[in-house]
Amino acid sequence: MGSNFQPLPGFRDFPPREHQLSRYLFEAWARIARRYGFSEYEAPILESADLYLKKSGGELGEQLFRFDDKGGRDIVLRPELTASLARIAAAEQRGYSKPLKWFEIGRCFRYEKPQRGRLREFYQFNADILGETSPAADAELIALSIDVMRELGLEEEDFSVRLSDRGAWLDFCQDHEVAPSRVDEFLQIVDKIERDPEEKLRARLRAFEIELEVVRSFIEDGNASCSAAISVVMEELSARGLDRYVQVDLSIVRGLAYYTGVVFEVFDTRKSLRSVAGGGRYDSLVSIITDGSTDLPATGYAMGDCVIMELLKESPNALLKYQAWQQQQSSCDVYIVIADESKRPDALRLGHAVREAGLSADWPLSPLKVNKQFKAADQTLARFAFVVGSEFPEIKLRNLNSRTEESITPGTNPVEFLRGRMEEPDGPLIA
Amino acid sequence: MGSNFQPLPGFRDFPPREHQLSRYLFEAWARIARRYGFSEYEAPILESADLYLKKSGGELGEQLFRFDDKGGRDIVLRPELTASLARIAAAEQRGYSKPLKWFEIGRCFRYEKPQRGRLREFYQFNADILGETSPAADAELIALSIDVMRELGLEEEDFSVRLSDRGAWLDFCQDHEVAPSRVDEFLQIVDKIERDPEEKLRARLRAFEIELEVVRSFIEDGNASCSAAISVVMEELSARGLDRYVQVDLSIVRGLAYYTGVVFEVFDTRKSLRSVAGGGRYDSLVSIITDGSTDLPATGYAMGDCVIMELLKESPNALLKYQAWQQQQSSCDVYIVIADESKRPDALRLGHAVREAGLSADWPLSPLKVNKQFKAADQTLARFAFVVGSEFPEIKLRNLNSRTEESITPGTNPVEFLRGRMEEPDGPLIA
Repeated sequence: MGSNFQPLPGFRDFPPREHQLSRYLFEAWARIARRYGFSEYEAPILESADLYLKKSGGELGEQLFRFDDKGGRDIVLRPELTASLARIAAAEQRGYSKPLKWFEIGRCFRYEKPQRGRLREFYQFNADILGETSPAADAELIALSIDVMRELGLEEEDFSVRLSDRGAWLDFCQDHEVAPSRVDEFLQIVDKIERDPEEKLRARLRAFEIELEVVRSFIEDGNASCSAAISVVMEELSARGLDRYVQVDLSIVRGLAYYTGVVFEVFDTRKSLRSVAGGGRYDSLVSIITDGSTDLPATGYAMGDCVIMELLKESPNALLKYQAWQQQQSSCDVYIVIADESKRPDALRLGHAVREAGLSADWPLSPLKVNKQFKAADQTLARFAFVVGSEFPEIKLRNLNSRTEESITPGTNPVEFLRGRMEEPDGPLIA
Repeated sequence: MGSNFQPLPGFRDFPPREHQLSRYLFEAWARIARRYGFSEYEAPILESADLYLKKSGGELGEQLFRFDDKGGRDIVLRPELTASLARIAAAEQRGYSKPLKWFEIGRCFRYEKPQRGRLREFYQFNADILGETSPAADAELIALSIDVMRELGLEEEDFSVRLSDRGAWLDFCQDHEVAPSRVDEFLQIVDKIERDPEEKLRARLRAFEIELEVVRSFIEDGNASCSAAISVVMEELSARGLDRYVQVDLSIVRGLAYYTGVVFEVFDTRKSLRSVAGGGRYDSLVSIITDGSTDLPATGYAMGDCVIMELLKESPNALLKYQAWQQQQSSCDVYIVIADESKRPDALRLGHAVREAGLSADWPLSPLKVNKQFKAADQTLARFAFVVGSEFPEIKLRNLNSRTEESITPGTNPVEFLRGRMEEPDGPLIA
């Protein structure tokens, strides 16, 4: 086998068995988003580099797939979904009532060193609320992020949400005379306050003439007496009984520069607190991207597919839930066994009638011994088989779980007969 | 508004209203594919240029998005799905029983001049059967292609399938001493036989020392007495009652060089016979892509989203079917009207309980006048509203279609009460 059997490094193939987990995850994402009243949209995968230059304030990260197209355009394969969302929302917002509650599930690309949970091509689920300044919108997204985890069978022992407010840090910076141009640099230090060694933190803070103790006590005080926005968020979550998943933790500032208010991050509590998802308020982004022509407050949430898929395999409860779902995914409702090749046209007519009724049917495309056909039927996980043989127009219906068989006499509609049997439970399975 | 509000030329934005049509189409594709016993897989969007060089025999088309990544790899944004499928099927086939019946719905990219029905980013739906040489597999795909059209509300007056056999043309080429290296060039002439002027056709055929009349009578004779493969396909389609959609037409040869047997194309019969979808047998491709290490006969079918979306808007019957579907897509089952802000926590608890029950619920994120809340409820197309006001724990349930209201007394589970009402028909709508 040559290298041509492999995808590019950091890219994944999803043959049908592997694809099932993606489908399970995507369906859960979309189901919860719709339950929360979000509508689906979709942005292009390629965008002009300009869009990202605006978003980032002139600098593009190192991790972009970026190239010139044949028309000389400077093009980027999207690394995330928010820039396109801001562009589209600005163009479309007049035609929709506010707030916009929009979601997307789409592929993103980052040129980084591939590792567990970090790949060059991945899916991201984004849910955003635009046109609403109330922290109730942030609470809505945090509730959504919790319900996504719960829908996947993950509970308090598996994850926790840490809630913070960048607004409080922006106030802190003002009080401690951090130049606006250096706020990001300062927040990068806060971001690492739990991981970096004390000496390193002190050295970096020296440039701001701020003591580590001052930062630490600001965090402790803030956690004890929350900001107004955090208080609203916690009240909204308490009303839903979801506050037990959330801890206020001002040391969470989130990497991206464009956050302006409430921020949060969902952590895996098993494995050294891996980040699974996160989000926050970004009230200035639409204005930045539209050169000030559209002002639209916004808050958003994003979860990638890579870390959560690892997590689903590691949590026994989540795995059981997925496996239960998997067992219901047969690739066919009824397999047509053609016991007499001369009856193939009759078998096809029957199979087509099954499909016309909205059920799935399969059969051997070339002549096959009857026992091999039953084997093929088992492999599709079909619960039933129709047997079309020399007795046609009499047909047999076989329950492949209970291994029982009954005859359908001519004059009875076999598809209606099948439907009746599909609604009945199977009784004890015979191994 | 600046150019930054627009996607790149040839790319599309799908805000929620536009996205509905994509979703409708993709759900129809996936539903029919599953009904036919196909399983979903997914390939990466980026592939090594090598893969396409092998597939095309050393030459890459002009219409590729192609670039070097940061690691110096020669990369292509996939222009179609079959090359990746062949790569993945070769790698995975041992783990699956044959034939493989696999489908994918994914984005593809071609750098062409954007025009109606042809864009630079588009979706393609592919269904392929690998590991089966019988023309019954080709018939299965043609039946699938017909049922996709029918599922979308398109009928005999809207489309027809033209069926041909490249195998017959390969025999013709041998009989008329066309050098194997020039077969493609010859078939390009046949491909244009209905569109090119006679003089041009004659001039091009002169290089092969073949008279136009010889080609024409080969087509006529072939249409009258089909090849063995075409006969099997027609029998299989007749058994399902689908032969009425199909005409044998040997002038169909399909552009791509890798087809080896039965080929077919689905045409729009209204607008100058636009091609809507097509497919055919490509028994050598897996072997070519794996340097001969895996031999897997294959046949496939592909439909893009651009032409069919045009067609759906042009066919009155298809449009009605889509609109009927659209009317059932409310963004919410029940809207929670908060008539007394002091009861917001109670309203949230109720809304969350609705969502926990698997229904969708929405409510105003900041205080809003009651009449504006009812307006917002109407905009979500919700059929019901819960009204939580000063009488709480008494709640009102309002049917937004019939404008009737009833009280739910404390002690009654409001979600169960709602479920009961959701199962009842509405009665006459009051405008």
